[in-house]
This record gives sequence, C-alpha cells and structure tokens, in this order.
Amino acid sequence: WLPLALAQTDPLPSWNEGPARQAIVDFVAAVATEGGPDYVAPGDRIATFDNDGTLWSEQPVYVQLAFALDRVRALAADHPEWKDAEPFRSVLAGDLNAVVASGKKGLAEIMAATHAGMSTDAFEQVVADWIATASNPRTGMLYTAMIYQPMLELIDYLKANEFEVFIVSGGGIEFMRAWTERTYGIPPQNVVGSSIRLEYVETDTGPVIMRLAELNFIDDGPGKPVGIQSHIGKRPIAAFGNSDGDFQMLEWTTSGSGRRLGMIVHHDDAEREVAYDRDSPVGRLDKAMDAAPAEGWLLISMKDDWKTVFPGR
Amino acid sequence: WLPLALAQTDPLPSWNEGPARQAIVDFVAAVATEGGPDYVAPGDRIATFDNDGTLWSEQPVYVQLAFALDRVRALAADHPEWKDAEPFRSVLAGDLNAVVASGKKGLAEIMAATHAGMSTDAFEQVVADWIATASNPRTGMLYTAMIYQPMLELIDYLKANEFEVFIVSGGGIEFMRAWTERTYGIPPQNVVGSSIRLEYVETDTGPVIMRLAELNFIDDGPGKPVGIQSHIGKRPIAAFGNSDGDFQMLEWTTSGSGRRLGMIVHHDDAEREVAYDRDSPVGRLDKAMDAAPAEGWLLISMKDDWKTVFPGR
Ligand SMILES: [Ca+2]
Ligand SMILES: [Ca+2]
Repeated sequence: WLPLALAQTDPLPSWNEGPARQAIVDFVAAVATEGGPDYVAPGDRIATFDNDGTLWSEQPVYVQLAFALDRVRALAADHPEWKDAEPFRSVLAGDLNAVVASGKKGLAEIMAATHAGMSTDAFEQVVADWIATASNPRTGMLYTAMIYQPMLELIDYLKANEFEVFIVSGGGIEFMRAWTERTYGIPPQNVVGSSIRLEYVETDTGPVIMRLAELNFIDDGPGKPVGIQSHIGKRPIAAFGNSDGDFQMLEWTTSGSGRRLGMIVHHDDAEREVAYDRDSPVGRLDKAMDAAPAEGWLLISMKDDWKTVFPGR
Repeated sequence: WLPLALAQTDPLPSWNEGPARQAIVDFVAAVATEGGPDYVAPGDRIATFDNDGTLWSEQPVYVQLAFALDRVRALAADHPEWKDAEPFRSVLAGDLNAVVASGKKGLAEIMAATHAGMSTDAFEQVVADWIATASNPRTGMLYTAMIYQPMLELIDYLKANEFEVFIVSGGGIEFMRAWTERTYGIPPQNVVGSSIRLEYVETDTGPVIMRLAELNFIDDGPGKPVGIQSHIGKRPIAAFGNSDGDFQMLEWTTSGSGRRLGMIVHHDDAEREVAYDRDSPVGRLDKAMDAAPAEGWLLISMKDDWKTVFPGR
C-alpha cells in the first residue's frame, strides 16, 4: 500500500491541472527514471531559480531597493550632510521619482552608503533584523509572506527527486543569504547573486570580512550563466525565471543536450498579485516571452496555473 | 548488535593512534552530539580543505603548473612563433629554471596560452584527458594516485557525520573541478579556487562560456576567507591546510565562536613522500607553523600520524 499512498499525496497541491504542471511532472519523471532515455544522475540534477518575481513579489519596487531606502532613513541621524546632498535628500523627502532620476550614479551612492563599509556579519544582522518586520507598502504583508506557495512546492518536489536547487538572482548575494534558508529552505551556499568586493581584515578583536564600496559581479542577463559556472560548475537541467534578465540563464539551461526544462512565471494575475510584463520597468518580460515558443520555454500563468499564490491565503 | 558493529568499524583506518587522530574524533563527537555543549546543527557543519599538499602531492611542482607546461608542448606545433619567444622557448627546451626566471609575467603568458581562449566545456575536456594519464616525474605514479588516503578517510568520516565538505584552494577552480568528484568525491559546486574571468557568448552552434585571459580572483592567503564567504556564505567550523597560504583560512575558521578545528598537514616523511616546510618554494610552511601553538592549530605528522600515505600502498 505504500507506493499507492505516496502516489496519492499530491506534491504540487497549489498547482491547477494544466500544461505548466504537466510539464513539470513529466520532466521530473523523465530525468528521475533510471534506465529511461532521459535519465539524469542525481548529482547532475541542478535546478536554478531566479528570485525577484519568480520566488517572491517584486512590485512596486525590488525588495532590496526598499531595504536600501529604509537604511538611508535609519542612518540619516548619523549623516546630517544627507539633508543637502542628492540622492539622499530625495530619499529622505520620500521623492522616489527624484531618486530614480539620479540614475546609476545616485543608486551606486545609495548602495555604497547602505550595503558597504561594514563587516559581512554586521550586514547579515542588519538584513535579518529588517526583513523580520519589513512589509510591502501596497499589501501590508511581510515581504517574506509574499512568496509564491506553488514555487515553494516546486522546490520541495525537485529536492524530493534528488535535485540540487540554487537561487541565481540579480539581487545581492548577501542580502538574500540572510533569509533564504528560513524562507525557502535554500541555504547560503546555494545562493548565487550580484556582489560587491570583499576584503579580509585583521582587527584587534579578531578577523572580519569587510564589504567594500566596489562592484564585483553583476549576476543578471549574460551574468547568470557566468554566475552559475562560477558557483556551481555544472549546467542546470532546469531553470525558472520571470523576466528578460533570465533570458541567458534559460538559454544556457535548455540548449544543453538531453532533456531540459525552462519556465517563465508570467505575472498575469491583477487580482491576486500584479499584472505586468512588456512595459514594466521592474521585471520586464518582453524578449524572453517572444523567444519562448521557439526555445521551448513554457509560461506559468499565475492566474490559470496557480490555485494559491501566497502561503496560507 | 548494530551500534556495536558500527562502533567497531574504524572510520579512519589509515590513521595511527595519536593526538591528531584523537583531535579529529573528539571534535566530530563534540559537534555531532545533540544536546551537548558543542553541538552544531548539520547545516552549519562546514569543513574546508586546501588541495595542493593537503589532499594530494605538490612536489616537485604544483600539478597545475605541470599541466600548463605539458599544454605548451602539446600546442607548440600550432605556434611556430614560440620557438623564438620566451617563456615558451624555455618551456620547449625543458629549461624550468629559465621559465621560473621569467617571473610573474612569463607565468601569466603561459597561463593565458594554456588556460584561456577556449570554452569552459573545452577546457574541462582538456584537463580530464590530461589528468587521466599524467604522472609525477619523480615517482611515475598518476597524479590522481598520489592523493592522501588518510585525508580521503577524513573527508568520508566528516560527510558521514553530516558535514558539508569543500575544497578551498589557490589552484584554478575549473582545473580542479574536472577531476575532484571522481578523485575525492567532492563535486564541482563544492570546489572554491582561483579564477580567470568568464564571458557568456552566443555562437552559431549555441551559447558557450569563454575563458578570458584576465585574472578574476586569487583564492590564496587572505583570498581564502573571501572565497569561502563568496561561495559558501558560512564560516567553516573545521579547516585543513598545509602551508602559509592557509593561514587566514585557519584563522577565520578557528576564531569563530564555539568549538573549532584547525589542522596542518606537515610534510615530514622523506621516505614515503617528501620532507619540506620552512624553506620550500612550493608549499612553504613557516608563519603558520610558528602561529600554530598559540592559535590551537594541530600539526598532522605524515610520518607519525599516517599508517598509509597513498591509496593501496
Ligand atoms: Ca526576476
Ligand atoms: Ca597547499
């Protein structure tokens, strides 16, 4: 009776029957069936997931940007000079348009002021403290509650079938590592992301690793396959994204030989989340959606394919 | 009778009784005993191993340098200009002293000519083909046979006690990844090393990741804790090295709070391997040996602590 009981436990209860769910189940069965034509040894069952917009909500602004702006506010008392200096003045005045208008230079200054100049341990603590209470301005929900229940089930389903699951995100690697294990069950060593340069420094109270205000690596677009190669050293057989920033990760994954799976979370559910794609400044999905049919990438419709969006809702 | 049978199976049969073996067994028991004062959750049982001189022999020259020199010879027919250009002329003439005299600039040229300008897949194949037959000039043994049996047992012992084991080496990350899984049972994603820059390139026959002739990261000395933070994102609780290049990795590991283990393989066995430490240009062990007593790092004597050095010998 045991196999029957196992078979009756649906590993993907938040997914509706449909082509997306079917593609996942068929793919996993194919690569996990020993002796089958598509069999892949467990050690090579590598699956990579984008984070923003694929595992959690990214609207109205990336959570890490919300963190940076909150940090400017929290640190403002120690920086009286910010009252008269852009882009900080606009952040403190709540003028997000002016912050955006400050461009890459302004954003780099905000990142340097909020993400660098401290040890990795100190930064981890700051992020962990912030994420414990920070909430989405639109919904009032904790950011860590606005994760996608169907994707959590997918991660667990892959792990149960001896996949090793990685996050591969344009977001900051240490920003994510502070909470991904608790939130998704994905530990720090399985998180790949953008990074600033680190330096090992001996101090009177022992060594620390300092975060320098210098960009090290951008894990987005063509950077994603490079980040994958650098951190994992194996080509994934399955990849999940939601925007054009995932184009090359999907391409690198599905152009390998043997059976592959590439899927794109399509934000088409205005009622339960936010509907956006080609015209969104955050998480734009345009080129990858055009390429999907020819590349064999399947869209996941949040509206049609998901019974539930957020856990417990 | 099962616990007794398990207890009777020595997990470290190639280790002699003595302080090194005892320190390992005591440490593992301490961190793996639930409810004990030194207990560490399995997810935080991170152990890092240097490679050259810690897991395999590094004398008379680093294996990766032997690979580079062999590649120059193999590629010479396609590069007639090398006959008249240093450092290649000296490599082809077998004049290793002149190669060494060419310094960092010469070595960088050799590395660029042999390690870059090809895809990651092509490089992996070249390394795999080479390591399958390449042998140590002094012993005639395959390089992959000159690995340390006691360290293999240690890796397996740690894994059996729910440690996650990583290589953290000054050697090239992709040079190692081509053979570490087969040789040590350590997969590519658990290998941290020095790297050159990578670039994702679309070609007519699909995408490739190209290896550029540009240094990206040196995973040695103070680079080791940085490589650990970048790839693992957790501080190890145990680290194993053999030279001054491991000083900061040992320091970073053992200066963390809670129970820690730092050990140094001491090459003091001229009969079964090679005896060297303070004066060796390859794998110099000087500053770390001086610091060991105060830092609580234990030396592993190859001569006294190891029953066997190489597998099957
Ligand atoms: Ca995204
Ligand atoms: Ca070494």
